[in-house]
Amino acid sequence: MDLNQISKPTLMLSEKIAKRNIAKMANKAEVSNAVFRPHFKTHFSAEIGEWYREVGVTKCTCSSIDMAMYFAAHGWDDITIAFPVNIRQTEDLNNLAKRVKLNLVVESVDAVNYLNGNLRSSVGLLIKIDTGYRRTGVWHKELTQVQNIISAIDDPHHFEGLLAHFGHTYKERDKESIRSIYKTEVGHLHQLRNALKLADCFLSVGDTPSCSIVEDFSEVNEIRPGNFVFYDLMQSQISSCGESDIAVCLAVPIVAIHPERNELVVHGGGVHLSKDRIRKSDEDIFGQAVLLSEKGWEFPKFEMIVKSLSQEHGKIDVGKMDINRFSLGDLIGVLPIHSCLTANLMKEYLTINGDTISTIHS
Amino acid sequence: MDLNQISKPTLMLSEKIAKRNIAKMANKAEVSNAVFRPHFKTHFSAEIGEWYREVGVTKCTCSSIDMAMYFAAHGWDDITIAFPVNIRQTEDLNNLAKRVKLNLVVESVDAVNYLNGNLRSSVGLLIKIDTGYRRTGVWHKELTQVQNIISAIDDPHHFEGLLAHFGHTYKERDKESIRSIYKTEVGHLHQLRNALKLADCFLSVGDTPSCSIVEDFSEVNEIRPGNFVFYDLMQSQISSCGESDIAVCLAVPIVAIHPERNELVVHGGGVHLSKDRIRKSDEDIFGQAVLLSEKGWEFPKFEMIVKSLSQEHGKIDVGKMDINRFSLGDLIGVLPIHSCLTANLMKEYLTINGDTISTIHS
Repeated sequence: MDLNQISKPTLMLSEKIAKRNIAKMANKAEVSNAVFRPHFKTHFSAEIGEWYREVGVTKCTCSSIDMAMYFAAHGWDDITIAFPVNIRQTEDLNNLAKRVKLNLVVESVDAVNYLNGNLRSSVGLLIKIDTGYRRTGVWHKELTQVQNIISAIDDPHHFEGLLAHFGHTYKERDKESIRSIYKTEVGHLHQLRNALKLADCFLSVGDTPSCSIVEDFSEVNEIRPGNFVFYDLMQSQISSCGESDIAVCLAVPIVAIHPERNELVVHGGGVHLSKDRIRKSDEDIFGQAVLLSEKGWEFPKFEMIVKSLSQEHGKIDVGKMDINRFSLGDLIGVLPIHSCLTANLMKEYLTINGDTISTIHS
Repeated sequence: MDLNQISKPTLMLSEKIAKRNIAKMANKAEVSNAVFRPHFKTHFSAEIGEWYREVGVTKCTCSSIDMAMYFAAHGWDDITIAFPVNIRQTEDLNNLAKRVKLNLVVESVDAVNYLNGNLRSSVGLLIKIDTGYRRTGVWHKELTQVQNIISAIDDPHHFEGLLAHFGHTYKERDKESIRSIYKTEVGHLHQLRNALKLADCFLSVGDTPSCSIVEDFSEVNEIRPGNFVFYDLMQSQISSCGESDIAVCLAVPIVAIHPERNELVVHGGGVHLSKDRIRKSDEDIFGQAVLLSEKGWEFPKFEMIVKSLSQEHGKIDVGKMDINRFSLGDLIGVLPIHSCLTANLMKEYLTINGDTISTIHS
């Protein structure tokens, strides 16, 4: 890549790392004989969707009806919207369900009754089960509620199975704890399936930490990880990946240098990286700086931390690095805390080969 | 407004409140005989820019060169880019400076030398002074550095004055503390101006807390507040505004109801509201819910707090409100923590009159 073509905050993408992440996850799913239905809420891009097709993926997951419409328009014809169905968008759902195999997520009899009365085309319905995260879904011990939802489903809408998201893995920091959550939560799904006397009921799970760390998915039928395609500093802290697995990096111009406090100010703020943060040494941090070259980015000898973000400003503590190596107008890279939100804000990618990749937002 | 037209997360805008906020600030500036150069980084919208023109505003502030190009294309011909100049975008700056009266912000001799050598059209240069916030700018006591920057400025680029941002007002929670910061920091600017023997040197300041709370701006020449047009929960916590001065509200559909823990789940997450947060009762909160009606929004009898946000999910604790009043598919409103970031993500507004207003992102 010619760095001279970058004049303002630009989201660089290593196609090589992203494709490696995709291939690794696809292979793990295949070995376990699990369906690999990747979540596309991280990259938002039809072109990146093609990278999954190259390894045989034919189904995808979306988090909104609008996102599903975009990917349907780009040839994806088997889509799960892994979000409690928004019944206000029934018209869009009807349009989608006419064109593609659509799976929706429900977690109440009310939602099912509404869909029975208002959806004109057939859809598959997955019941969202809360196995422990406590964000949403039917609590896994509420057997009657699950049964009532299944009973409410009218033909031609089909009960497809149970869907869960073990989002509490995000609070963990080591592989063993994540394996333990995965095992416990899959156990809850199995108990529920047995209690329902639906031994072959389809089970779909999907957080990136579990899917990255667990090797054997044979206890479930489908995995839906999303973030793993790019990873980020949050996943690295969780232990889902190494920093060298992070596939995106925000290139930002240096706009001010403060040698007296070892700080750089860059054009790169909350409107580029998002305000997501992680705790590190008792401080919130907003990114980690890396050095850019024609070949992408490399890790500096000493850590350089994004200490704060305003709307457009980023403040980088260069730590033990010699600040005199940086000049006004130089580019520096920032690994994001949460790549999904950064990608959503940046709207397009520049690959290390110098190609622009568009998204739903471009 | 017909709420039935809203099917997914939608940023509602009260034209009445926003225009009242604009009129109040314009009037305060006028009474103090200060130039009112509002920052347009909050609303991003040419159409909302017109609301300022209606009260006589002819100059604006932007935070990036791209934003300045957008407003220049919409008839704004006197623009300050209140951000340390990004010298990698010199080509864009040259195009802009040909068309409009452009003021840039510098804080080093290096930046000035670069502009001297590379800018083909005349621009005004303001020196960014750090009076205490410690984000960026020349420290106000560094007299020699300021003098060196002024000396470096070549004709035809003009030294326009000193620019500061008292961003540390954001850490305060009462009016008296903010008045005190304003007084101290303006004092630093005056001391610097006197030491430079530039008694009539132009002074530009601009954080929303100071501009909202201080009544008399006669000690400075220009104010550049931005956020005040919409305000938000962060500003309300700071004491810059009341909650009834907040002009934007994200309408979100309820997608799940959890009576056993008094929680609603809505389609409204970090990609809509941003992940900015404030501390309240020792917890991070991400928004506050209000009740919607055809006339806009109203405050519920008891507080309803957005406790957490994922990418697309929001979790609302309804507190002492009766959760049975809410049904699946109902809309509820969320007042944002940081309206600038929410507006940037949502890309357009729906006014309470039912009109759509576009932005630079639409």
